[in-house]
Amino acid sequence: MSAVREKANRRISAIQSLLCVGLDSDPQKVPDVFSCLPDPVPAFNRSVIRATKGSAVAYKINTAFYEARGLPGLGDMERTLGEIPGECMVIADAKRADIGNTSRMYARAFFEHWPFDAVTVAPYMGFDSLEPFFAYTEKLVFVLCLTSNGGSRDFEEQRLLDGRPLYEAVLEKVDAWQREGNGGVVIGATKSTLLGELRRKAPTLFFLVPGVGAQGGSLEDAVRAGVDAQGGGAVINVSRSLIYPSGSFSSIEDYEAAVAAESKKIHDTMKLVLQGIGAGGA
Amino acid sequence: MSAVREKANRRISAIQSLLCVGLDSDPQKVPDVFSCLPDPVPAFNRSVIRATKGSAVAYKINTAFYEARGLPGLGDMERTLGEIPGECMVIADAKRADIGNTSRMYARAFFEHWPFDAVTVAPYMGFDSLEPFFAYTEKLVFVLCLTSNGGSRDFEEQRLLDGRPLYEAVLEKVDAWQREGNGGVVIGATKSTLLGELRRKAPTLFFLVPGVGAQGGSLEDAVRAGVDAQGGGAVINVSRSLIYPSGSFSSIEDYEAAVAAESKKIHDTMKLVLQGIGAGGA
Repeated sequence: MSAVREKANRRISAIQSLLCVGLDSDPQKVPDVFSCLPDPVPAFNRSVIRATKGSAVAYKINTAFYEARGLPGLGDMERTLGEIPGECMVIADAKRADIGNTSRMYARAFFEHWPFDAVTVAPYMGFDSLEPFFAYTEKLVFVLCLTSNGGSRDFEEQRLLDGRPLYEAVLEKVDAWQREGNGGVVIGATKSTLLGELRRKAPTLFFLVPGVGAQGGSLEDAVRAGVDAQGGGAVINVSRSLIYPSGSFSSIEDYEAAVAAESKKIHDTMKLVLQGIGAGGA
Repeated sequence: MSAVREKANRRISAIQSLLCVGLDSDPQKVPDVFSCLPDPVPAFNRSVIRATKGSAVAYKINTAFYEARGLPGLGDMERTLGEIPGECMVIADAKRADIGNTSRMYARAFFEHWPFDAVTVAPYMGFDSLEPFFAYTEKLVFVLCLTSNGGSRDFEEQRLLDGRPLYEAVLEKVDAWQREGNGGVVIGATKSTLLGELRRKAPTLFFLVPGVGAQGGSLEDAVRAGVDAQGGGAVINVSRSLIYPSGSFSSIEDYEAAVAAESKKIHDTMKLVLQGIGAGGA
């Protein structure tokens, strides 16, 4: 059984939360109290982690936001990796995948060179492009399935000859290809009815659910529809609406207090729903 | 009209070649004459470029091979970028794409922070995940369409309700979404009959054709089927079979001579086919 999966479920059960904090940290968006520092992004991330660590099950690093600044940006990513508490799952939101010998290199990057617990990957190229990730049986591999953006209609929701939408074919394949419980899928919260349907079709896959907050999905619905029968097996990502609260801040402590309050609010909601469905009990 | 497309077509016409040299440079695979140096990968890439530059239309940097070693690897990538002759197109084989605000960051990474001419992207998430790349009208954007690996059967070749395979739907969308001639597709050479069919369906898209050499596609067929009516609009990538010639080398000059000979052989074949179909004339 995937050790990362066990770690995540242990944390969900211990704190009754599904919160994944998305570190989509953009130097142009960090509050002024950080942008005046010599290393604004690592300082900002440190504050986000400090403010959320009591409520977070996972942290998701969106590699694009670091790669956009090349080596200095990726250096910031490395420094942030060292700040995340060991009991939280660390996800590389990288959406990689290529032919086998190339995917092996990407898997090496995120699972060996950098100490991520999980990675997001894209399914288009099929089995041999994903297998090198699934080969890491102790990790979690989240395959894009049904995403929260409008463009999901272009291909993901197209129906195949047998009537199933493409995303369902992806779900079924991932369920078949995963190894020792290391399979996961990305399913947007903006489609919570479908989220519930897909949960019934794949009761044991781990779900990474983006799209609440700035993208508009309902948090309660996402918790209810996303969890597995044991009240675990899912994390719900919140990025922009949590890490960029409105208002201006006179100090780092001020900023952290605002993020901690929002984080607690999300955690309280999650706790209530989880307890309501009688799940996730420690 | 995309300036990169014009540059590539100018080069194709000038040297009568479609050769794209894939820099899939793995420190564990570079010949001994490089692995004993302090910076084996940049030295190896420098030699590959020196040996192939008379025949190359494009160089393709497979980001995975650099990312696998983290910052030192990406530092090697940066050094290599500075060595590629200006008349050649430089492709980031990155296979990225995400929701819009994230794809904007990836586009910034490859088109602004690093000076690539072109990038490969994955279509699964649809229009808004690709639009931030197409927004760079002077560049070329290669969208995965029909790849050369076995896994292409899992999703790419699945038929939609209207009978078309998914890859055809991707081809048509890319043709509609590209701007000012900056659209391209990745189509594997291992399916040369389909390559010709797709060329007829999309006469103006730029084709990036991997899969000859180590992956087994025929070079002549790929040239014949891949070019547009003007004998341009396509590059054919060769990586492993060109940059890792068999045999051992007593010096860097020895290695470069072997690669130059193989590169010339490929170039001669391409020239012959291009002249045979009366295309690509300067």
